[in-house]
Parts: sequence; C-alpha cells; structure tokens
Amino acid sequence: MPCQNFDYTYSFNNNSGEIHEDRRKKIAIVGGGNWGSAIACVVGKTVKAQNNVFQPIVNMWCRDSRKPGDTTPSIADTINSTHENPKYLPGRRIPDNVIATSSLLDACQSADILILVVPHQGIPQICSELRGRLREGAHAVSLTKGISSCYENETIKMQLISEDIEHALGVECSVLMGANLAGEVADGKFCEATIGCKSLENGEELKMLFDTPNFRIRVTTDYEAVELCGALKNIVACAAGFADGLGWAYNVKSAIIRLGLLETKKFVEHFYPSSVGHTYFESCGVADLITTCYGGRNRKVAEAFIKSDKPLQQVEQELLKGQSAQGPPTAQDVYEMLEIHEISEKFPIFTSVHKVFTGEHGEKELYDSLRNHPEYD
Amino acid sequence: MPCQNFDYTYSFNNNSGEIHEDRRKKIAIVGGGNWGSAIACVVGKTVKAQNNVFQPIVNMWCRDSRKPGDTTPSIADTINSTHENPKYLPGRRIPDNVIATSSLLDACQSADILILVVPHQGIPQICSELRGRLREGAHAVSLTKGISSCYENETIKMQLISEDIEHALGVECSVLMGANLAGEVADGKFCEATIGCKSLENGEELKMLFDTPNFRIRVTTDYEAVELCGALKNIVACAAGFADGLGWAYNVKSAIIRLGLLETKKFVEHFYPSSVGHTYFESCGVADLITTCYGGRNRKVAEAFIKSDKPLQQVEQELLKGQSAQGPPTAQDVYEMLEIHEISEKFPIFTSVHKVFTGEHGEKELYDSLRNHPEYD
Repeated sequence: MPCQNFDYTYSFNNNSGEIHEDRRKKIAIVGGGNWGSAIACVVGKTVKAQNNVFQPIVNMWCRDSRKPGDTTPSIADTINSTHENPKYLPGRRIPDNVIATSSLLDACQSADILILVVPHQGIPQICSELRGRLREGAHAVSLTKGISSCYENETIKMQLISEDIEHALGVECSVLMGANLAGEVADGKFCEATIGCKSLENGEELKMLFDTPNFRIRVTTDYEAVELCGALKNIVACAAGFADGLGWAYNVKSAIIRLGLLETKKFVEHFYPSSVGHTYFESCGVADLITTCYGGRNRKVAEAFIKSDKPLQQVEQELLKGQSAQGPPTAQDVYEMLEIHEISEKFPIFTSVHKVFTGEHGEKELYDSLRNHPEYD
Repeated sequence: MPCQNFDYTYSFNNNSGEIHEDRRKKIAIVGGGNWGSAIACVVGKTVKAQNNVFQPIVNMWCRDSRKPGDTTPSIADTINSTHENPKYLPGRRIPDNVIATSSLLDACQSADILILVVPHQGIPQICSELRGRLREGAHAVSLTKGISSCYENETIKMQLISEDIEHALGVECSVLMGANLAGEVADGKFCEATIGCKSLENGEELKMLFDTPNFRIRVTTDYEAVELCGALKNIVACAAGFADGLGWAYNVKSAIIRLGLLETKKFVEHFYPSSVGHTYFESCGVADLITTCYGGRNRKVAEAFIKSDKPLQQVEQELLKGQSAQGPPTAQDVYEMLEIHEISEKFPIFTSVHKVFTGEHGEKELYDSLRNHPEYD
C-alpha cells in the first residue's frame, strides 16, 4: 500500500524495492464543512477507480476551530479515527483513503489538484498561507459560492472568486457548480454538476476526478457564467424562501425562479459579455436554481427570517449550527456592485432580497419587484 | 346596461335610442372545466377594464354532460345562477358578466375572439360543429395542451393542436401557455403566461385581453415552441411524479426538470428548426415546467400511479374527479412520433415515462434514463 501519510505521497516503493516518483496526480481537499465532506465521499472513491491517473490517498484540510484549552479531538482527528464528520455531515462514511489534517500546508504542498471548498470569507487567508508553496503545474477547482471585487483605476470592478484564487495563488482555477445538495451527494444519490474551466485539459482532468455513474459531470469553458450561476442562485433562493414564508403560491415561486434566472443571465451578460447562453441549461443553471429554491439552506434561512422578528445571525445560528448562508452576503455584494454601475433598477429581485434583509423592504415591495419586473416592459 | 344575452351582443341601444353596431370585440370561452373557469375569472374582469376594446359580456360554453333523464341543472345553468362552477372550480366566484350556455353555437357565433380551453380529445367535434359558422375576422387562442399529427404523402407528420384548429376552423389560432395553476389564477394570485402568435396584431390584442397587474403576459411569435412547451411539460411532470413516488431526492428531481427541458428543446428543434432559444426562458418554458413538476395534476397522478397497483384510469378517477391528466396520452403520442422518426433513443425521459405507464419500464429503467442520458455523452 503506497503513501500512508503526507510525506510519502510523491514516492512509492514498487515490487523491486526501488523508490520511484509517483507521476499520478495528488488530490487535496481544502475545507472540512458539509460540502467538503460530501465531495470527499465522491473523490475518495473516484481516485481509487482511476488509480492509473490519481494517487489513492486524498488529503483533506479541516480548520481546527477549537479554542485554547479545548482538549476534544479536532475535526481532522475525528475524521481520521471515525471516518465521519459528525459536526457537518453526520451519518455518512468518508472513505478510509481520505486522510484529514489541521495543517493547511501539509494537506496542500504535495497536491497537483486543489479542491477549494471553504466559505468565501475564508479564501484570502488560505491563499496567503499557500502562496508560493504549491507544486509546479498544480491547478485548483473552486466550489465556493459568492462574488468578489477589486479596485482598478480607482473604480470597483467585479471579480470572480476563482479569479481571486488565481491571482493569489498563481495557478489556474476552474469551478464546479451544480444541483447537488451535500447530503444527497454523500449518499451516492443521482445528481449532476457543471465544471467551468479556462483550459479544457484541466477541465477534462477534473471530470475524471469527479464523474461517477451517479454524479454526472459536464464541462464548459464558459466559466464566468458557471461561477456566477452558483453564486447568484443563493439570492434567488432567498426570494423563494421569503415567498414560502409569506405563503405565496406555486405560480409565484416559479415566476421568482424564472425571473431570477433572467436576472442572473442579465448580470453575467453585463459583466462578462462574451458569455454564452447555453450555460443556463446546464446543471449549474436551471437545475441548481430549482434545487436551491426548494431544498437549500438559503431558502430555509430566508423563510425563517421573514416569519420571525429575529436578527438574521440568530436565525442562521439556530438553523445551520455554525454553517452560514451565502445568500445574504452575496445579495449585499451584488447590490453594491449594481449601485456602483447604476443598474440596480434592472435587477429588482436581487435588489429587493438585499433590502428585505436590511429591513428597507417588506412584503409589498418584494411582491411589486415581481409584478412590475422590467421583463414585462 | 348593454347586451344582456346572446342575441343582442352585436348591437346596443345608446342614449339617443338608436341601435348602433358595437365594434368592440366579443369574447367567447369554449370550455367550462377547471382552467376554463379560472380564465373566465380573469377575462370577465379585463373586458370591463378595457371596455373601449372589448364587449362587457363574455360568453362561455360549458358542455352539458348530463345523462338523459337527469334533471339536475346543467353546469351552464349553475354558473349563471350561482356564479360558481362547483364541480371544477369550487369556492371561486366567476364574474357576473360571464354568461354560460350549453349551446356551442350560441356561445361562439357572435365572437371575435374564441378562447379554446377544452381537453385535446374534444377539439375535433367542437371544430366540426363551428366550421363555417364563425364571424369574419374572428381569431382563436388555444389553451389546450397536447400534440397532434396528420398524414402527408402517406407518412405521419407532427402537427400542433393550434394548427388542427386553424385547418378545421379557417381562423388564425394563437396559444397561451405558462406557469399558472387554475386555482391560483382564479384567486388573483400573481402569475405569468406566454402568448405564442402568428401575427403580432392578434398577439397584442390577446395581451390586452389577458394581462392584469397580477397575471402578467409576454408575447412571442415563436408559437410552435410555446405550444410544445405547454404540451411536453406534462410528460416531464409525470417523470417528476414518479421520482416523488419512488422517494428520490431533490437533486434527482432538478435533474429531471433540466433534462426534460432539454428534451423539449431538442423535440422542438427537430420538428420546427426555425424556433428560437429564448422561449425556454419564458413562463411557458422553465416556469411552467417547475410549477407543473411541483404542483400540477400530472405529477400527482404519476406519483399515485407508481405507488399503487391500480390502473391509470382508476388513479385518475380517484384523484381528479372527472378531469383527466394530459401527460400519459401526450407521452404516448410523442413516443409514437419519436419511433416513426427513429429518434426515441435521443429522448430517454419521454420514452421511459410512456413505458412506465404501459408497464414496460420500472424504477431501474427510469433511473437509467437519467444516469445514461445522451446529454452526458
């Protein structure tokens, strides 16, 4: 059995007793939350099935969030001893060949492919720790949902999280988005995903890494649209959650999903005019939107928020047990970007979702954002 | 108050006592089922709001399905006396200016716009009764879901129901489709619809007739795609219902909706290559599909069918109280068309839905129609 720990992953002892370089690709998962643990369930199996391409041990970094003096085991220790992440993905077995660690460098330094699956807020620190420490030829794939921004000539410019990662790490970064709720993926239930890549070579390699008979992958180079579909769907899901909380009908929810998809398309076309239309028919488009609007955590948080008088943070704390919903911060980032570009009136649902969270909009304004949508002009 | 009954709808007595021709458009609704009654709730109000364009009395034909000797009132009588259709749309008030009749000719002969909202099976008889009896310049709009066929040079050719109506009646026939469950429309809840028309002049007139602040209409000339979206979504909804009945996950249902939308698109492009892509983003496309897959009667019937050993007819009888689900016959019509054109393997979901209803496919084959979908090739 080759490579039992992090130091030996790049050499293995063949039958003749000689040490050979292992040219197979080494995988590291960066993130031990709900979705990171679910993707570990997939990748732990595919590396074994494709063992001529991938090394059989998958590294997995899990943040050690214990306070000083806390003597309970770290998440990494727990995963390595029980092959389960009881905090974020209870009841699902993470394959034995996924080896967790609390050390980001240990997990990533030897990796050829980094799977980044951490909340948006965690990206800068992780990238600054890894900068200049990765293998030559390494590339990344981001599963993180959100949008970013940067200053260019003193004006704020829209930026993708995958672009942040590329700039910070100096490696090509693809994205994987799609209709895949973590628990269902971990259970091996049928679902789909879309990989958006810059180079098809990396895209096809990632397809080999993720594709299984029950987790079907399609690859496109329209990576901006793929990533933005993944981010913006969380805003639409908040609108769907408000609709559920307010007891609105099926028709209204379908209209929210459709108009939300059109706002997503308009947003992508505004900031990335070279994007192509077919991406919205991919799993990252319409399918992910439907899954998230019916079964996701953003819907759930938004429904509870509008039905109660509690602050958003308290609702999240009660419902998500330490995880966060990306919809509200994404709605805020998007709203600020729309305001700077003076186009917020073209995006009434995105705008109203943000304003419901800030208390500026109520039921009537949200309803009017649908009824008076510019799509009907 | 002008025009209190069918004989006087084309003249009214103005203040001077003279009889003048009323040039405003007269509306007739053909069909008194669930959806016909709901649309009567909308149109009864819009004709009043647009009383410079439309005559204020709307005729409504309701089939008299009483057996000989049955002395209970007809549906038309009941609607006229109670302003409610207790059989098909209980609890909703049909506006007083909608006047029902059991006579098809009485309802339609004076009409400028016929709203056809009857099951597919009823169309031929209605058209043959009305042929040559309509006003000059009249046009129609079909709300009926299904597909048809005709023989051309001894081969079966795909045909739209709106084309059947045009050929049979000799009038232009538009279509109205969209995400609108009848009960929610009748309640005045927000929803949307798409009109597919041949001439924009008729399309815009129909928009005036149907559009309200809570029932938002968009018009397109891509009428083939609009009509086929309306028909084929019922097959996809059956697949969604099977998924629900089998306890499959959110991800699977979203994949069914996405792949079903792509089969719909492929079907339209095969038979009507001039069709345009944007129609799938209209209410008749993605929104109607979602509504139907979550809240519609085809979903309900398919779910119950796959969970029981009962024949389809019995399930329909128990659940729909005399209404029928269009999904199963549409799946059969589509399957036959695909077989004749030797392309059924490109449409695994449409094909499998038909074969589940005939007993040729079970859970495994349906699941495989997703996992091995040509979309992943």
